[in-house]
Amino acid sequence: MDPPTSAAHRSPDDEAAAFFRAAPPLRDRDAVAASLAAFDCSFRVRAAGAGAGGGGGPPAVAGVVCVTSGGTTVPLEQRCVRYIDNFSSGQRGAASTEYFLKAGYAVVFVHRRGSKQPFCRFLPEDSFLDLFELGQGSEIQVPESHTTVVKAAISSYRKAIDEGLLLKLPFTTIFEYLQLLQLVSTAMNCLEHHGMFYCAAAVSDFYVPWESMAKHKIQSAGGPLNMQLNQVPKMLFILRNHWAPSAFCVSFKLETDPDILIQKAEAALRKYGMNVVVANELANYKDVVVMVTSTGKTTVSRRSKEDDLEEQLIGLLVKMHSDHAKQSNPDQET
Amino acid sequence: MDPPTSAAHRSPDDEAAAFFRAAPPLRDRDAVAASLAAFDCSFRVRAAGAGAGGGGGPPAVAGVVCVTSGGTTVPLEQRCVRYIDNFSSGQRGAASTEYFLKAGYAVVFVHRRGSKQPFCRFLPEDSFLDLFELGQGSEIQVPESHTTVVKAAISSYRKAIDEGLLLKLPFTTIFEYLQLLQLVSTAMNCLEHHGMFYCAAAVSDFYVPWESMAKHKIQSAGGPLNMQLNQVPKMLFILRNHWAPSAFCVSFKLETDPDILIQKAEAALRKYGMNVVVANELANYKDVVVMVTSTGKTTVSRRSKEDDLEEQLIGLLVKMHSDHAKQSNPDQET
Repeated sequence: MDPPTSAAHRSPDDEAAAFFRAAPPLRDRDAVAASLAAFDCSFRVRAAGAGAGGGGGPPAVAGVVCVTSGGTTVPLEQRCVRYIDNFSSGQRGAASTEYFLKAGYAVVFVHRRGSKQPFCRFLPEDSFLDLFELGQGSEIQVPESHTTVVKAAISSYRKAIDEGLLLKLPFTTIFEYLQLLQLVSTAMNCLEHHGMFYCAAAVSDFYVPWESMAKHKIQSAGGPLNMQLNQVPKMLFILRNHWAPSAFCVSFKLETDPDILIQKAEAALRKYGMNVVVANELANYKDVVVMVTSTGKTTVSRRSKEDDLEEQLIGLLVKMHSDHAKQSNPDQET
Repeated sequence: MDPPTSAAHRSPDDEAAAFFRAAPPLRDRDAVAASLAAFDCSFRVRAAGAGAGGGGGPPAVAGVVCVTSGGTTVPLEQRCVRYIDNFSSGQRGAASTEYFLKAGYAVVFVHRRGSKQPFCRFLPEDSFLDLFELGQGSEIQVPESHTTVVKAAISSYRKAIDEGLLLKLPFTTIFEYLQLLQLVSTAMNCLEHHGMFYCAAAVSDFYVPWESMAKHKIQSAGGPLNMQLNQVPKMLFILRNHWAPSAFCVSFKLETDPDILIQKAEAALRKYGMNVVVANELANYKDVVVMVTSTGKTTVSRRSKEDDLEEQLIGLLVKMHSDHAKQSNPDQET
């Protein structure tokens, strides 16, 4: 293994600052900031156990959660033809968003472009049109077998959008993702303990700094390709310490080797000050996860092939988040 | 630049054989072979100018084309969390497939999982459900503004599937793609000059050989990551020389640097024995391409934002393919 670069001797704050200075700026930064401002200011967070509240004013929600979902890319060329990607369908984040909405949360869904979307998980991947047919009057029909699921999806999705409970923000590269995370978390900081971060995105560990990146497509005529990639600064540390220090923070640890999984999850819990690290293995991430906290470990298993593991997971997290908010500020009832 | 590896001194045939020996075998190879056998045997290729033919028997088609579409991935780990990907939405391949079908061709659509699909190009990327609403009787409705385009899509897609004119075969990795290309092209070899290959997929130039790949997720604690990638054998050469020598072959050359584009396209034409190399630049690939052949260059430009460049491109290629078939076998009328 190579010796660590000089970056390893800098503080996490310095590393993060250097990363952002060198990153290509988010193209639609102003539009994102405006939509976030409109979204965050429109909620009253209701105390646990209180009703939805009647009358006018902003809708009452159980909390606001930022769900990150899908993998980030690392461009290898400035005019990007090739990039390194991280395996993630976005299934976990999309399913979790549905259950957070069901639990009364407002959700900022920070997702990889083209990844799985909430209420669309049932869609056949490459044959969307197989879901539809034309009736005798050439009206659009859904085959009998799918009507229930498609109708439920349309109605749940419409409700979330119409009530302003779901804000979708897309990213592709690691540069876009981390800038979005910073924007969302600093905007959500005003929610204090009522804010939650549920970081299920598969974030690149290595990247090519923009200024050292090839400008044009790398040519293949010159024989094998040698690449050196730098470590991405650990932004969860910055999120916890600077961007939204009071929020309830959940991160994920994915490994392929079960022998090191729990130990790595525990290290992340300590190092980044997470409230929960959800440990999962690539081979069975849909069937079982382990929630690692400072007080112990809880295994969550899917009950059957028809159930979503996320239903139980979100149930447990919502309860823990509610305790977190109560302990932090027992009198709060805004 | 490093000196070329020993692989560069082997013949293209040896390199290809070594690649396939070391690649993880295609999981659904038998099913793919069976669906290809059923597909290819079901057509009569009609001579140019002849009618669709009546009566029973297999449908008459103008030709059979294999369209490849979307980018291939290069796994960096055997239990793959990270991979290198090639930029490609699959827009070109999906649009071209529609125009080939319109021109009377049967199409084998070899596509990256999750890439753009024929007749689905109008779909909003991440908000499929925005296309639908529930009526008062809770029936599924498409908003007035989209009815025409959705109906046309459903009906064109249904027709292609029901008449057996469209076979969709998905890939993800470079290993899957090249094995599929071999299966399809050897199956289509019986079509001789009536077969066409339209290779629009963005194929990786570099890969990590399976046996030298990390087994588990690469750990980020050890500082920067150094990688060496080998060149992928140029399979277009093998396709032309061994798999389907009489077919009409069209490949694509994408560059970001306009200064080297045409020269690289001309080199590919010579080196791999293509009939046409379509040269395109990343910055404007939807608006203009240059068709490079042994007799000259033809620029094809999109007429307006509402038009598809592929409509003109496929029109020209169908004409050239028809000439290719006539010249090769002037009496053929099967």
